[in-house]
Amino acid sequence: MKNFADRLATAVCGRKTPVLVGLDPRWDLLPAGLKTAVASERDWPGVAGAFEQFCREVIDVVAPLVAAVKPQAAFFERLGPAGMSALGNVIAYARQNGLLVILDGKRNDIGSTATAYAEGFLGRDESPWGADALTVSPYLGDDSLQPFFDTAGERGSGVFVLVKTSNPGGGMLQDLVADGRPVYRHVAEYVERQAARSAGDCGYGIVGAVVGATYPQQLAELREAMPHTWFLVPGYGAQGGTAAAVAPAFDARGLGAIVNNSRGIIFAYTKKPYSDRFPAAEWQKAVETATREMIAQLQTDTPAGKLVGEERMTKDE
Amino acid sequence: MKNFADRLATAVCGRKTPVLVGLDPRWDLLPAGLKTAVASERDWPGVAGAFEQFCREVIDVVAPLVAAVKPQAAFFERLGPAGMSALGNVIAYARQNGLLVILDGKRNDIGSTATAYAEGFLGRDESPWGADALTVSPYLGDDSLQPFFDTAGERGSGVFVLVKTSNPGGGMLQDLVADGRPVYRHVAEYVERQAARSAGDCGYGIVGAVVGATYPQQLAELREAMPHTWFLVPGYGAQGGTAAAVAPAFDARGLGAIVNNSRGIIFAYTKKPYSDRFPAAEWQKAVETATREMIAQLQTDTPAGKLVGEERMTKDE
Repeated sequence: MKNFADRLATAVCGRKTPVLVGLDPRWDLLPAGLKTAVASERDWPGVAGAFEQFCREVIDVVAPLVAAVKPQAAFFERLGPAGMSALGNVIAYARQNGLLVILDGKRNDIGSTATAYAEGFLGRDESPWGADALTVSPYLGDDSLQPFFDTAGERGSGVFVLVKTSNPGGGMLQDLVADGRPVYRHVAEYVERQAARSAGDCGYGIVGAVVGATYPQQLAELREAMPHTWFLVPGYGAQGGTAAAVAPAFDARGLGAIVNNSRGIIFAYTKKPYSDRFPAAEWQKAVETATREMIAQLQTDTPAGKLVGEERMTKDE
Repeated sequence: MKNFADRLATAVCGRKTPVLVGLDPRWDLLPAGLKTAVASERDWPGVAGAFEQFCREVIDVVAPLVAAVKPQAAFFERLGPAGMSALGNVIAYARQNGLLVILDGKRNDIGSTATAYAEGFLGRDESPWGADALTVSPYLGDDSLQPFFDTAGERGSGVFVLVKTSNPGGGMLQDLVADGRPVYRHVAEYVERQAARSAGDCGYGIVGAVVGATYPQQLAELREAMPHTWFLVPGYGAQGGTAAAVAPAFDARGLGAIVNNSRGIIFAYTKKPYSDRFPAAEWQKAVETATREMIAQLQTDTPAGKLVGEERMTKDE
């Protein structure tokens, strides 16, 4: 199956959950056991090795539970070239463990430069990084995005365009009103056209949108306006988004959205209630528990519960 | 001297030219002599080695002539982790040869993720990449940009925010009119405030703006509206911008703008009139000639001629 939207739908249905685990390794939150071999925070190759090991151990836990992971490029780039090698290894390891990999790089540039990013990141076999999808920023306009869509289409990959982001300052540009509607709605209309054009059997296209969990009203409004667009929803957990807040992101089948949680899962051992139950050495158990609890919350409080129900129905027949 | 704006002004005055050489290595345009040891275009470590060698040889030629180079991250990322190692080496080599390095990465993200990018890229001694400045995209709003400004301020580094880009599609978002003025003017006002706040002795601040050479009218309008903002002007040469078109980017002293040329310089040997004069093996001579001709054109047709004149005046005194 080549269409990325269908690959994502199949993976989400297979795991029966839209939970996306964000791989955002941070030195100050890393379990102590992974830090022992590293001389200092400025030992960048050492820290990169620890980040890679940490992400591998997160993947070991979450691969049987979720469909996809989202490595955040910034935390690897933070470490220089050594961090980039670690990122490459983490992407490869996630794929070996059956996960889709959405790289969060928010890249953007014009023409042949955008093509270079797209060709570098997108495509399991064709690209050196081997990601399944990439996040991109729309400020440079349509001719900066088209190369990503083209390469994604050729390689069975996907692109998620920033539309309405989860941070408080996102409104500075995104909420400016032009021609009677906010800038993010202009971007949304463009993205939806691209998604409709590339729709697979699941009804969604290979061009998705990043829409924050912190704006439930906009999630609902955009779900209606963008019937062919997969949503990548950040802001759940640490940023304040709840299961009820992300419910409007889904369609009636429980498809159409993947909900990211980074710190709330991978560093669950540092926060209540998990910190009371799991010592640092058992941080992987905290990852598993936090993942299972998020899966359960989305099943209870959002249409994603249908992903389980439908499977049951199939079995009952 | 810690303020990046002053470091840039000093470097431009020292070389008496605002020419910025873009390092955009492309496999298909690489001189044949650098390709011989590379098995294929998909031999990414091999291509990365060739890119690094090519950029080093460009730097050998341009370091005595210009103040700064602008590596384009995309062309290195295109090659996976091996490309990133090459990028790190190219940045270090440019600095060893006395050049300022403006990394063109157009990064953007929120909060602590933006901080990770900033801390990774900005700062000669503090960061693993060691760039002097970084280009960033504003779609995510003020709280996504502030971490870059903060880190840049602490480390004597600079940030160039995309304001009005040189590509035809840039208008899709940037030219939408909100509250009576286009989106790029909203971004410009914000950037100018940040620049004014961080102004050094030269009158400019550490927060600059990317403003394309392909829109001379907007260049003039923005120069007037942004008196404290260094402009990074792309689009000269290959994209159609002329010396006359970029003239409005400068102040009366010949400061306030650096003008990028990538392909027109580094791959000059592939295009007339240079291709008639220099065989591929003499591609470095084409780089030198194209650089000197661009320097001369900006001296003749823009206020940057003052950079030479003032030095002459000083000598005459």
